[in-house]
Parts: sequence; C-alpha cells; structure tokens
Amino acid sequence: MSSPEAAPARWEKLGEESLAATPILDLHRAHYRHPRRGRERDFIVLDVPDWVNVLALTPDHRLVLVTQFRFGTNDFSLEIPGGVLERGEDPVAGGLRELREETGYSGKNARVLGRVHPNPAIQNNTCHIVLVEDATIAAATQWDQDEEIAVNVLPVDEVYALARAGRITHALVLDALLHFAPVWAGLRPLKSEI
Amino acid sequence: MSSPEAAPARWEKLGEESLAATPILDLHRAHYRHPRRGRERDFIVLDVPDWVNVLALTPDHRLVLVTQFRFGTNDFSLEIPGGVLERGEDPVAGGLRELREETGYSGKNARVLGRVHPNPAIQNNTCHIVLVEDATIAAATQWDQDEEIAVNVLPVDEVYALARAGRITHALVLDALLHFAPVWAGLRPLKSEI
Repeated sequence: MSSPEAAPARWEKLGEESLAATPILDLHRAHYRHPRRGRERDFIVLDVPDWVNVLALTPDHRLVLVTQFRFGTNDFSLEIPGGVLERGEDPVAGGLRELREETGYSGKNARVLGRVHPNPAIQNNTCHIVLVEDATIAAATQWDQDEEIAVNVLPVDEVYALARAGRITHALVLDALLHFAPVWAGLRPLKSEI
Repeated sequence: MSSPEAAPARWEKLGEESLAATPILDLHRAHYRHPRRGRERDFIVLDVPDWVNVLALTPDHRLVLVTQFRFGTNDFSLEIPGGVLERGEDPVAGGLRELREETGYSGKNARVLGRVHPNPAIQNNTCHIVLVEDATIAAATQWDQDEEIAVNVLPVDEVYALARAGRITHALVLDALLHFAPVWAGLRPLKSEI
C-alpha cells in the first residue's frame, strides 16, 4: 500500500545523554539524524533494564497469579509474577528467581515463550515471557522490603476470562497470555477459542 | 492461597512532585505511606498522557498496519496505528484521528474494545484499544513532521501469525490482538484458535 517515497528511513543515532537517573530507569535525550533530509533532532527515550514475566502452569493446569499494590496506577493489579532482570542475567534464570521470590513456586521445562517491546517508541528494553511447567510450591517467599503479594492460583480458562473481562489490565501480562494461547490450545485440544 | 497477613495493603499517596518534564512524559517522585506499618517511602512514577491504538478492519477482513522507525528501540516496528490522546479527548475520536492522520483510513462502528495499563508498576496512564470496522481510505495522510509511515493492509490471520512468529513485538499492539481475538472468532466461526 505504500508509495516508494513513504518508506520510512532508518535514522542514524549520533549520541545519547542522560537527563535523569533513577533506580528503575534513566531518562535520556537521544540525538538522531535523518539519512536523506540530513535533519538532526533530539528524542526523549527511557533507558530501562530488561524485564521478565512468568507463566507458571501447575500440574492441574492452573496459572500462578499475584495481586500487588502498584504505585504507577495507585491501585491493585492482578498479574503474573515478574520483575527486573539483573544486568546480563539469563531471562529463564531471572524468571525462575522472580517466581520463587514472589510466590515460592518452582517448576520444570522453563523456557522463553516470546519477547516483546514494552514501548518501542520511547523505551529500549525487552520483556521476556517465560513459561514454567509443573509448577509447585518449593520454597518460602522472599519479598523485597515493602513488597506484599497475594498469590492466587486459577484455572487457565478463568485467567483468560478475567483478561477478556478487563480484570487483568497489565499490558505485559496480557502479552504473555497471547503468546501462551497456542500452547494452551495444544494442551487442551477441545478448546475452541481464547 | 494467601494467608491473611499476606493481603497487600493499599498505600496512601501523600503527594507527588515532578523531577523532570518532557514533551512525552513527566518523571515524578510519589510519596506514599503504608497504612499499617506507617512507613513512608518515595517511588518513581511516570506521569504519561493516555494513549490509543486502533484495530482498523477492512470490509474484506484485513487489518491496517503501519511500519515506523522507533527511537526507543532504535529500529523499525510493525504496529497498528495509534498515538497520544489530547487531554480530555474521547478515545474513539482520538483513535479515529490517529488512524486518519497516519494512514488516511476511516471507518464505521468505532468503539472501545478494551483498556490496558501499559505498566501499572511505574506508569499512571491507560491505553485504549479502539476497533473500527468497514475501514477504507477516505483522506490523504497527515503525518507529523519527521513521521514516516509505511502502511500495509494484511489479512487478520496473517497478522496473528506475525504476532506468534515474533514479527510484531509492540506490547500494546499485541494487547489489541488479544482483545480482538473473540471478535475475530465471531466473525470467523470456523477459526479454531488464534
């Protein structure tokens, strides 16, 4: 559908400087040049560590969910476990760590199911979606200071129903459910739709 | 699964101040107090306008996609149209505006299909997912300065295949596809899974 002149160009990144540093992300000004027009322009971007979230499937086909108070929305949020990866940390290892710390669960066949960009327009990071099977409680929780988490383990179909009903609103959790849908369809051949 | 003492408390927000203001978001320090422990603590949050993204379905059941160069990831990204809502702007009106400006398409039966929180942990905004049916080209595009967009109109099944294959990675676009799945299943009764 695009005319040739509409093909978007790859801007050349000339540099980037920090405007503000915080414990969770840094605010950067990135300096770019357009390859054809030669125009230079600054764009605000967020330098953010990679994140991971975890679909922990129990032997009886339930998913481990967590409810936390979230300071961004100033409200509670129903989510899957997850968190920030350490620099260079393997996403599967990080996902298992977050799952264990937040819920006490551990499992088998942990693997990356997909990778998404939380916001390509303004953030540089990736959120890795990890699937863990045969999840069972294996340890006590290890919450960070000021972390309070209610753990609920719900049937997979109920989790999708909550998502459809707008009871799960965390964008990255919904992404995990999208990537998990084909896996779940394979586990439940009679399932006709998500 | 939770013991009573694990029930997360609703922190009380005592105040919030801006650390940095940018054209796309403001960096805030929010001051909270825990209702039981009395502990006070600051959290970094992003004050961000609401966003909208648009599933524009053509009469022959294709979706209008856009490819743009994105400065956050420093790469191209395949997405659905969308953007920032003006303060107080109706999400449907804003979605139709973004659709028209970015692609020239307009349509019928525009409605909100769902609402997600891009990141409840650190952002206060909502992304509204708008569905537009019978989408056809109705006007010339009106790109912002430095906006270059390639428009591609692809069959719905192909869009889901691209999402599953990791060719569509924008978290909020994938959310729109999750919320659209039941609608699409209704339009295509023979479809067995997304």
